[in-house]
Amino acid sequence: MSQIPTAPPSGFRDFPPEATYQRARLIETVSEVYRRFGFAQIATPALEDLAVLLGKGGGENEKLIFKVMKRGEQLEKARAEGAELADMGLRFDLTLPLARFYSKNKGVLPHPFKAFNIGPVWRAERAQKGRYREFYQCDVDIIGADSVTAEIEVISAILAAFKAAGLKELPVAHVNDRESLLARLRAAGATDRTLGAACVAIDKLDKGVDVHGELSSLGVDPKILHEQPAVPERVKAVLDAVPGAVFAPTLVRGFDYYTSTVFEFKLPGVSGSVGGGGRYDRLTEKFGGQPVPAVGGSIGFERLLLLLEEPKAAGPRVVVTVFNDELRGASLKAAATLREAGIAADVYPGTAKLGNQLKYADARKAAYAVVIGPDEARAGQAKLKELATGGETTVALAELAQKV
Amino acid sequence: MSQIPTAPPSGFRDFPPEATYQRARLIETVSEVYRRFGFAQIATPALEDLAVLLGKGGGENEKLIFKVMKRGEQLEKARAEGAELADMGLRFDLTLPLARFYSKNKGVLPHPFKAFNIGPVWRAERAQKGRYREFYQCDVDIIGADSVTAEIEVISAILAAFKAAGLKELPVAHVNDRESLLARLRAAGATDRTLGAACVAIDKLDKGVDVHGELSSLGVDPKILHEQPAVPERVKAVLDAVPGAVFAPTLVRGFDYYTSTVFEFKLPGVSGSVGGGGRYDRLTEKFGGQPVPAVGGSIGFERLLLLLEEPKAAGPRVVVTVFNDELRGASLKAAATLREAGIAADVYPGTAKLGNQLKYADARKAAYAVVIGPDEARAGQAKLKELATGGETTVALAELAQKV
Repeated sequence: MSQIPTAPPSGFRDFPPEATYQRARLIETVSEVYRRFGFAQIATPALEDLAVLLGKGGGENEKLIFKVMKRGEQLEKARAEGAELADMGLRFDLTLPLARFYSKNKGVLPHPFKAFNIGPVWRAERAQKGRYREFYQCDVDIIGADSVTAEIEVISAILAAFKAAGLKELPVAHVNDRESLLARLRAAGATDRTLGAACVAIDKLDKGVDVHGELSSLGVDPKILHEQPAVPERVKAVLDAVPGAVFAPTLVRGFDYYTSTVFEFKLPGVSGSVGGGGRYDRLTEKFGGQPVPAVGGSIGFERLLLLLEEPKAAGPRVVVTVFNDELRGASLKAAATLREAGIAADVYPGTAKLGNQLKYADARKAAYAVVIGPDEARAGQAKLKELATGGETTVALAELAQKV
Repeated sequence: MSQIPTAPPSGFRDFPPEATYQRARLIETVSEVYRRFGFAQIATPALEDLAVLLGKGGGENEKLIFKVMKRGEQLEKARAEGAELADMGLRFDLTLPLARFYSKNKGVLPHPFKAFNIGPVWRAERAQKGRYREFYQCDVDIIGADSVTAEIEVISAILAAFKAAGLKELPVAHVNDRESLLARLRAAGATDRTLGAACVAIDKLDKGVDVHGELSSLGVDPKILHEQPAVPERVKAVLDAVPGAVFAPTLVRGFDYYTSTVFEFKLPGVSGSVGGGGRYDRLTEKFGGQPVPAVGGSIGFERLLLLLEEPKAAGPRVVVTVFNDELRGASLKAAATLREAGIAADVYPGTAKLGNQLKYADARKAAYAVVIGPDEARAGQAKLKELATGGETTVALAELAQKV
């Protein structure tokens, strides 16, 4: 029998208890903040029809998609005809599923629609250190709102989520208006033909690339990089409402997607961003709808996790040992009392010697172990061992929950 | 341009806000209970190598797997060689990933290992009403424990989760020992050749099938269905420790998987089960390890959701209207005060007339709307509208949070 691998597929991760606990808590925290800001959570499937994912023509996204093969007769037919063998794919972001969901349900949704969506996405990128093929996104969007209130609310909600997550230093919102940047690029010499390339060049400012040279070679005066232009109106409204937000006149965030406001959250002294977003108006066009004004933002979930403190132990506070089969009932009862008081309590699920049960309690990083032998059981008591100190006291079962 | 679909793929579901809120809350509730019972959450990828999913030979699972196509050069090579075009697949349960995770990490995990895993699984079943291709499982397992304490803890944790979820009537744990059932089947005439088929027949008892006839045709005396045998020792230990649990001498739960104890949670008067599990010893064998004693159980997440009350509204408690651009700041400030007090507050993200903003507040199912016009702003006050009654009071901004 050939060896079956025990590692997850390349680029994918298993999460042991501590990491899973930290991830689950962060998802709960972010959800709670988004809800407090009036956003309502939606959920969409991991799989989408390939036609949805590829849109018109596919293009650069096609390479990113994990494609799911047709099944049964459909697969046989496709093979026989030399047709596409896949009919679905794993979603590569949460924006496209939101656009599909909104296009289908807009008739019954509140208008504007304030939604958040937290979940994994999958990208068939070359596996490399720090780049994963399965990772979480935490998106928050307002669809159907042209007021700058939408930008302010999305940015404020994300900043509040950073704070609630426990970041010691709060990221700063960097804000720009792409329309105004494009106008300045044209004034500096960009043409219809070179505007896109000029944006791509400026987008690399943070990455140690010779942006000056690239702009010059495109016929764009690189002094644009050092201008302090007037703050565009929409950006000014955001700066007025969001404490600490700054105008970032060269912020681009990609070229095709956003239509006016763009923003990014940066920690002073840390390169890259921990989130970002912007205003986009063409979201629902591909599903045959009218253009709808929308603002969306996203937290860099995996990035944020790296900035947070070490996760707390995910284990129980107390391990209740089991003296022998006859006394199992007494231990189960003690655990039930602790659990009813909201205390995480583990009952040792075996028949090992007491010493091994205490070693187990250490491995679980519990604070206390409880021992109920024949004497304690008769007296309605328990021995309570503090694992860090080794200290031991005998307490009445009725007071156990209070003592730990 | 051909029309791109707005519906999810066949057999998959979008979840609107109310349903998503209910699902997220149930996941949090179940997680919290499992943690309180000393289980630690792990997470594994959605995708697994095909070799892991298929194991030795594949068999009946193969048809259930959504296969993911190879990419790039690997795909070209496979095409050219006529080899398997898929290299991964979507997990169809959480037990196999747990077995892989345990086999890889057992050296650094506590022993016994108490784990839970909550997440979606995918099965390429024929789409039909009430059967989904993507659904959640909530698994709880103890690996490396041969004591019946493991059965008791898994069953107790699941019952506590049902209770915390808000089920009005608590399901009853039906418990059997498969070893003892197999011995009785042999005594009633089953042979090595017919034992499996007899189990499959008995497994259909709940489903209106002529089990008597099937057993007779297998040469097994059907009176076994009406016997009240002695309670097996392991089952007795469970009944002693779990309030309300009953001995179910004909409970099978499949044939190949479980090795001794099996259990199922049933609601009186409701057919089918809302969860179940059992003891299995061959979990890690396929990854080359020694057999490890293990007990696992699972909640029927989608089934349980159907039994719970209608979800509460997922919307904000308060919608703060925006009178005009100049007064936006006052509305944002009022919302910030509410949010700091832990109250979900939405700021209307647009510039519609007040009447439309109030309609929006109704659509969000908010309890209150807040209006801050020029007079209120000057006086540091807000109009508070109770949406159900239309009643309106003017309150100081400082008292707003207290009033709602």
